[in-house]
Amino acid sequence: MNEITIKTSKRNEFINITDLVGNFLNNNSKKEKGVILIYCPHTTAALTINESADPDVPVDIIKYLSKLIPLSQEFKHSEGNSDAHIKSSLIGQSVFVPFENNSLTLGTWQGIFFCEFDGPRTRKVFISML
Amino acid sequence: MNEITIKTSKRNEFINITDLVGNFLNNNSKKEKGVILIYCPHTTAALTINESADPDVPVDIIKYLSKLIPLSQEFKHSEGNSDAHIKSSLIGQSVFVPFENNSLTLGTWQGIFFCEFDGPRTRKVFISML
Amino acid sequence: MNEITIKTSKRNEFINITDLVGNFLNNNSKKEKGVILIYCPHTTAALTINESADPDVPVDIIKYLSKLIPLSQEFKHSEGNSDAHIKSSLIGQSVFVPFENNSLTLGTWQGIFFCEFDGPRTRKVFISML
Repeated sequence: MNEITIKTSKRNEFINITDLVGNFLNNNSKKEKGVILIYCPHTTAALTINESADPDVPVDIIKYLSKLIPLSQEFKHSEGNSDAHIKSSLIGQSVFVPFENNSLTLGTWQGIFFCEFDGPRTRKVFISML
Repeated sequence: MNEITIKTSKRNEFINITDLVGNFLNNNSKKEKGVILIYCPHTTAALTINESADPDVPVDIIKYLSKLIPLSQEFKHSEGNSDAHIKSSLIGQSVFVPFENNSLTLGTWQGIFFCEFDGPRTRKVFISML
Repeated sequence: MNEITIKTSKRNEFINITDLVGNFLNNNSKKEKGVILIYCPHTTAALTINESADPDVPVDIIKYLSKLIPLSQEFKHSEGNSDAHIKSSLIGQSVFVPFENNSLTLGTWQGIFFCEFDGPRTRKVFISML
């Protein structure tokens, strides 16, 4: 399984991993055309694709998610990080991007983000080529 | 990359693209069995699968999403459409449907919807066969 | 299409299907390495990956989702279960897990859950190997 390691520095943080994924594709793809899967093996983190041009977009998403699903003492799970588990299931553990000629066919404004919801931690993502 | 073009007519709108995807599969599939990926290259739109029999279902989903994530002046992103970016990450950019004998194996009530959150615009989706 | 049948016993319930999927992989995979797709053909249910070690995690997720999206009389859809349709689109109909040597490469704490939002019912999921 191919892995990329990511170090996060805050409790809630979106890290743009588009270049990491693009470099991986360049170095590893044996096919001209296909789909790349990026998989998050953590239960308090997620992956999403959204605008990477304006850094205020991920800031707004992070802030609003924490307003919708606040850190709370009302949860049963004793680690106290159920907010992060809920965000993880809402955003999702996998993203897929089609590629052609060793380039990701992302939309003009799209970037791939690792979403940390219970950091800071050292995380990893798995990559598969379909 | 195979593309379908979609014209949306409202700011928030779900457009049933099941027939467009089914026709594409009929005309392009070289395999008897597989999985079709539909990918949204936009950051203020999404794709989902839900009930297509009763048109009130997408109406309820659209309305409730806008109640959960209202258009607001509190966001930092200067374009003022952060609500649409948040909805896009919550619903997601990709849907997958297994197919057999050139037919989508959707559930009885399922349809594939393009979810516009910042229209009206001309949009596109990419299609890949896995 | 390969199917697994699941019987749910409550209106809202997460059922851990990790072993069912693992057994299916063991009995059916012809490839050493790949990705398994689990697909939910229902519009008031979903699939997610989250912590399976502490059963309080799915309890917290279920409870908070029902707080965010309550059963309500305000919806138009006459069946009265629009809350379940909304949860279904937010959580999603598909999960993917990479596998190697006939084992799912899930993260340490990850399990695969079938998410019932309008039970009790007899449900099914489709499985494809990519």
